[in-house]
Amino acid sequence: MDAAIIAIGSEMLTPDRVDTNSLWLTDQLNTRGVEVTMKMIVGDDRERLVRAMRHALDEVDLLFLSGGLGPTEDDVTRDAVAELCLRPLVFSQDICDWLVQRFERMKRKMAEVNKRQAFVVEGADVLPNERGTAPGQWVEYSGKHVVLLPGPPHEFKAMFTAQCVHRLEPLLPKQVIRTRFYRVACMGESDLDQLIAPVYKPYTNPATTILAAAADIQIHLRARCPHEDEAEALLFKVAGPILDLLGDRVYSDNGDPLETVIGHQLRAQRKTLAVAESATGGMLAERITSIPGSSDYFAGGFLTYTYHAKSQLLGIDPAFLEQHKAVSEPVAEAMARCARERTGASVALAVTGIAGPGAGSESEPVGTMFIGLSAENHSSVRRYHFSGDRHRIRTLATQFALDLLRRHLRLC
Amino acid sequence: MDAAIIAIGSEMLTPDRVDTNSLWLTDQLNTRGVEVTMKMIVGDDRERLVRAMRHALDEVDLLFLSGGLGPTEDDVTRDAVAELCLRPLVFSQDICDWLVQRFERMKRKMAEVNKRQAFVVEGADVLPNERGTAPGQWVEYSGKHVVLLPGPPHEFKAMFTAQCVHRLEPLLPKQVIRTRFYRVACMGESDLDQLIAPVYKPYTNPATTILAAAADIQIHLRARCPHEDEAEALLFKVAGPILDLLGDRVYSDNGDPLETVIGHQLRAQRKTLAVAESATGGMLAERITSIPGSSDYFAGGFLTYTYHAKSQLLGIDPAFLEQHKAVSEPVAEAMARCARERTGASVALAVTGIAGPGAGSESEPVGTMFIGLSAENHSSVRRYHFSGDRHRIRTLATQFALDLLRRHLRLC
Repeated sequence: MDAAIIAIGSEMLTPDRVDTNSLWLTDQLNTRGVEVTMKMIVGDDRERLVRAMRHALDEVDLLFLSGGLGPTEDDVTRDAVAELCLRPLVFSQDICDWLVQRFERMKRKMAEVNKRQAFVVEGADVLPNERGTAPGQWVEYSGKHVVLLPGPPHEFKAMFTAQCVHRLEPLLPKQVIRTRFYRVACMGESDLDQLIAPVYKPYTNPATTILAAAADIQIHLRARCPHEDEAEALLFKVAGPILDLLGDRVYSDNGDPLETVIGHQLRAQRKTLAVAESATGGMLAERITSIPGSSDYFAGGFLTYTYHAKSQLLGIDPAFLEQHKAVSEPVAEAMARCARERTGASVALAVTGIAGPGAGSESEPVGTMFIGLSAENHSSVRRYHFSGDRHRIRTLATQFALDLLRRHLRLC
Repeated sequence: MDAAIIAIGSEMLTPDRVDTNSLWLTDQLNTRGVEVTMKMIVGDDRERLVRAMRHALDEVDLLFLSGGLGPTEDDVTRDAVAELCLRPLVFSQDICDWLVQRFERMKRKMAEVNKRQAFVVEGADVLPNERGTAPGQWVEYSGKHVVLLPGPPHEFKAMFTAQCVHRLEPLLPKQVIRTRFYRVACMGESDLDQLIAPVYKPYTNPATTILAAAADIQIHLRARCPHEDEAEALLFKVAGPILDLLGDRVYSDNGDPLETVIGHQLRAQRKTLAVAESATGGMLAERITSIPGSSDYFAGGFLTYTYHAKSQLLGIDPAFLEQHKAVSEPVAEAMARCARERTGASVALAVTGIAGPGAGSESEPVGTMFIGLSAENHSSVRRYHFSGDRHRIRTLATQFALDLLRRHLRLC
């Protein structure tokens, strides 16, 4: 069964407001085997809402509405659903009495406008609201279900949990959903897709989603089956070949980011890590130390943005810097080695390059990055050329540095 | 003129992903007098997208699409728009050549699938993509405008700015919109609103929006009038008293973030800056060096996450550290002083504290932060207690440190 969600309220169409109810509800529905195939946001406009609901009900059998159940004229959801179903709104003395009592308990007099909240679409199930004044409604209409829920998130969630889950269960097919979640570092989206598409494309179950950020790709597989072992078997059939093709480019099978993975590696090997950052200017250390407990393995670092800092803080000979220039393989190597020696860490990473937008040259254009790694019996430097703006170039250099370390530690 | 926005991509229908492009675009459109009356999210399903677009174009004359322009079979936007308009997709050799060159510049071979991105709806204006492989398209259809933009936010924003704004202008009614934009550091949202609400609440024109992030509040004023002087006069009437009330808490009147403002200050005063970061672990330096050209004034820094690093990298006496503990006023002061001395900078910032979630104590609970500032003839340390998760606590400490520096430099 598929569902759609419409969030109602003109404030949800401003630049500052995000509809978070639908995220929470999607999670609730997905775990019960219901897919959300469409979401909409419409303002406080009755006719527009009616048309939006008609469109949604052409697509799905289960429609959740959030918001527009308040007492003011802006609150149009009740009227719009009545118009959609061609049914009258009927006054509920029960709801009205409950509202009066609710206000009395709060030592306030109910305003006349609140009576609007006592109107119900004829034939609807009333969903009591434990946390606010707006009752919800569950309306069956032409074999479809339209569920009216209040907009404030704590009311919305409480009402779904208390009133909707048990009404939903009998409508659902008996099925389970099982997922796999992999993360891949430092690979282009189209390269990855070309590699693994032949594996997953033949299957609609499990459904495969590929999500790309800067040098960080997420692969989601989701299988829906009547029984758990069938779901697991389907996942195995697709995930197995994908993992074979991607090999050690897969760095996580539980959603952990790269900085968590290298944290586990360092901890397991009782190693410590230092950094020397030029072009990334703190971004690499920031990611490493974003993990609680990283003080166990992060031995410290140097932010050496200038020639002066590279010689003074890391002890690199100024003549050596002059000779090779700061953005070079020998300097990346020296930065990593000096950072390791000065902190006493087991391993160190160094980044030097040109993040731009200025300061590029023909031999070292903007985006040129040298990433150095120094360990007790090993030292390596890689040269990259990244494209994009300053932030993206720094983000990519950080990601590639972390992945270089991950690959190094895998072999230790 | 009203607009609708459809975000396309099955990943946008998962519990974890928010469509942020539409928020940014709504702001851009509102500023130009265009209201967004509906937003939708649909998955990678061509037929469903065609129906969604039909519905949207029944409501508005201007439809923006984000996403689904990639090279894979999941990317259905081009095909769906062609089907909507009943026009063929035509292959553009120009786009294909540009794609091939783009890959060559990155020293990569173009994958065969990327050719899909060279197909254009017949009659469409091609919108070049400076930041990615997916060109956009501007399609006129039955007197309406359908604009295809790529999903990745940096591509989406750059393309709208470079390619859509000037195409949009001739479609809009003649009116001027004038804005003011202030940023305020280190003040609570409700405190700020309580202070300035009496000034702006009586006016609907200019419209006032207050946007709060971690210790960083933006105040937007927007006046819409037939003529420029009327708009400026309206803005003056509201902005003047707001600036009087907020005084030096306003750090920017042009949208610049705090790291840009302190960059200007340091440059103007020919000063250099160093940092010593414990709890923030690189976040402070990352913000400082996110500004192009910051190497002119950023003298370098130390990431001293442990006792060992504080003594070894900064030269703080281990006995002194033992005596005062790392999260203390004397250590924050010593970190700043040592960072300044070791780098030869004019001024230095230091942050030490407990970002959590573990390691808090009764006297120094999670969120305790000491921020030290050392200059030639001045030294100060402030103690703060921030609440929130690890990321928020680190973000707040970084923001307060930058603002401490801004206030110090104002008095120099």
